[in-house]
Amino acid sequence: MRIALAGLGHVGAATLRLLQANAELLAERGQMMKVVAVSARDKGKKRDCDVSGIDWVDDVLDLAKRDDVDIVVEVVGGASGIALELARAALKNGKHFVTANKALIAAHGVELAQMAETHKVQLSFEASVCGAVPVLKMLREGLAANRISSIRGILNGTCNYILTRMESEGADFATILADAQKLGYAEADPSDDIDGIDTANKLAILAAVVFGRAPDLGAIFVEGIRAITLQDLRAASAKGGRIKLLGIATRNEAGEVTQRVQPVFVPLTEAVANVGGVFNALEISGDFSGETLIQGRGAGDPTASAIVADLVDIARGNRGYAFGVPAEKLV
Amino acid sequence: MRIALAGLGHVGAATLRLLQANAELLAERGQMMKVVAVSARDKGKKRDCDVSGIDWVDDVLDLAKRDDVDIVVEVVGGASGIALELARAALKNGKHFVTANKALIAAHGVELAQMAETHKVQLSFEASVCGAVPVLKMLREGLAANRISSIRGILNGTCNYILTRMESEGADFATILADAQKLGYAEADPSDDIDGIDTANKLAILAAVVFGRAPDLGAIFVEGIRAITLQDLRAASAKGGRIKLLGIATRNEAGEVTQRVQPVFVPLTEAVANVGGVFNALEISGDFSGETLIQGRGAGDPTASAIVADLVDIARGNRGYAFGVPAEKLV
Repeated sequence: MRIALAGLGHVGAATLRLLQANAELLAERGQMMKVVAVSARDKGKKRDCDVSGIDWVDDVLDLAKRDDVDIVVEVVGGASGIALELARAALKNGKHFVTANKALIAAHGVELAQMAETHKVQLSFEASVCGAVPVLKMLREGLAANRISSIRGILNGTCNYILTRMESEGADFATILADAQKLGYAEADPSDDIDGIDTANKLAILAAVVFGRAPDLGAIFVEGIRAITLQDLRAASAKGGRIKLLGIATRNEAGEVTQRVQPVFVPLTEAVANVGGVFNALEISGDFSGETLIQGRGAGDPTASAIVADLVDIARGNRGYAFGVPAEKLV
Repeated sequence: MRIALAGLGHVGAATLRLLQANAELLAERGQMMKVVAVSARDKGKKRDCDVSGIDWVDDVLDLAKRDDVDIVVEVVGGASGIALELARAALKNGKHFVTANKALIAAHGVELAQMAETHKVQLSFEASVCGAVPVLKMLREGLAANRISSIRGILNGTCNYILTRMESEGADFATILADAQKLGYAEADPSDDIDGIDTANKLAILAAVVFGRAPDLGAIFVEGIRAITLQDLRAASAKGGRIKLLGIATRNEAGEVTQRVQPVFVPLTEAVANVGGVFNALEISGDFSGETLIQGRGAGDPTASAIVADLVDIARGNRGYAFGVPAEKLV
């Protein structure tokens, strides 16, 4: 499989390192995988990966046009713009498209899934939710036998990190946010994370896979953690629990789906309460499986693990609908 | 897909109920699935499932001979005997074989995997480890990008249930075991569970998938929970932890694999310590993924969830080597 890589930030560089470090093992588990072309904004930037021997392409859209590319991997980010143009071009040109871009899939997932079906290629986005943790595979395949009534998850590592440190250090929100920004755990403009937008994008994707709905950000009630005070956390602790920013989607007996992102009190007796720091987690309730909880790391290296898992699936010929059902069935 | 079901104990009955209850949903997610024949020891026994309209077959081995069967599902149990004969007959006759039987796969998995490859059918045993939790799919697919250095898990719900109740009730081993037997959480002859044999079977399968080794029960050091006293649990609690029966497999830098089943002190700060009652859990350390933990339920309904997930994979045409690599590569 010949791969083009768009974007060489933390996740892109980690993906390249993984493909190089574990090349032999990946060949055993699927097929030989080779990155033939890369593109990123600044060629001169120092990066934690080795691009020697790989074609550098200045116009990222050219990656989708190359005859020597089977799969385009996108880690540029953004709900539209370059990422969307690249996705459309790659799929139209009959190339598989693998992305970690939750905003893109939440906004344009159905259009792209339709395009992938038309051109008989794979659209894969395991890396868009919960880092290394293969939650989409679990929902689409591992728990496919179940009627799922609810999912709830800690989907944003930055928020969980801030809440965990506020509690353990007895510090207020602004102090921990500032330190998280200094340490690189939060962006200079943290709004996407702390106002719940990133969590909402991920929840929209999860709910689509679980309930066969088109991702719909407008249907999600969203409240972030900006207003959470140390007093709130202390009150939660006194009541035997913690406050966690959760993405929750449920379906009732009548088939009505509700989706919300909000800070929620979780008793310590529930496993989700004990998922701390930068960890992500998802709890899934199925009619035969009962409750399943999966937790793991997000960010650079773990997200690369999920991207390459998608590549291995494609290499093995394991194909499937992007959201588990044909795009036209997503209502 | 036309299915023959061998065994109608808790798991078999739950599998039949699931296939009937979620038939429409399964058709959407894969293909129509229909149980055409069943076999069990006692036809007259009252069971929690409806076998009307399904052929009852007295000789279980006849299930493997029927022209109207695509997949044989085995939930009879046992490392050899009928289960092994049925597996060989089904695979030789070109039928997919799906089983929840850990003892069978730990003892004869390589032979059966070879047979499946020869006859170009699927051998699947997700249900043999961790009930509903799709750990084999995670290891073979979701975390396929990683070099995995260690796994450790709570693999036997009966032991975890006994240890959890001993601690919470301050009762001794014999008292809780007797009550667990009365409630149906432990067998009349509990040795397979409490002496660690069941955990060892599951660990052998997991280690095979993770490290590309043939399952080898003889290579596993096994110690059960029979000797654990209330005093041990109290001492662990005083040191800020719990005693859990873990299956652990690790590979060092030199490639040497060690496998053991034993009661281990786990600090409360580690997620595994907080997995209580009948829950199963597996923690996986990969070079890019970092630590991933997955937990969920075992026993009847949840195990049926895993069996049917295997059926959905077969229906979708998602095929793969039983242990992730060709059987001849298992050393």
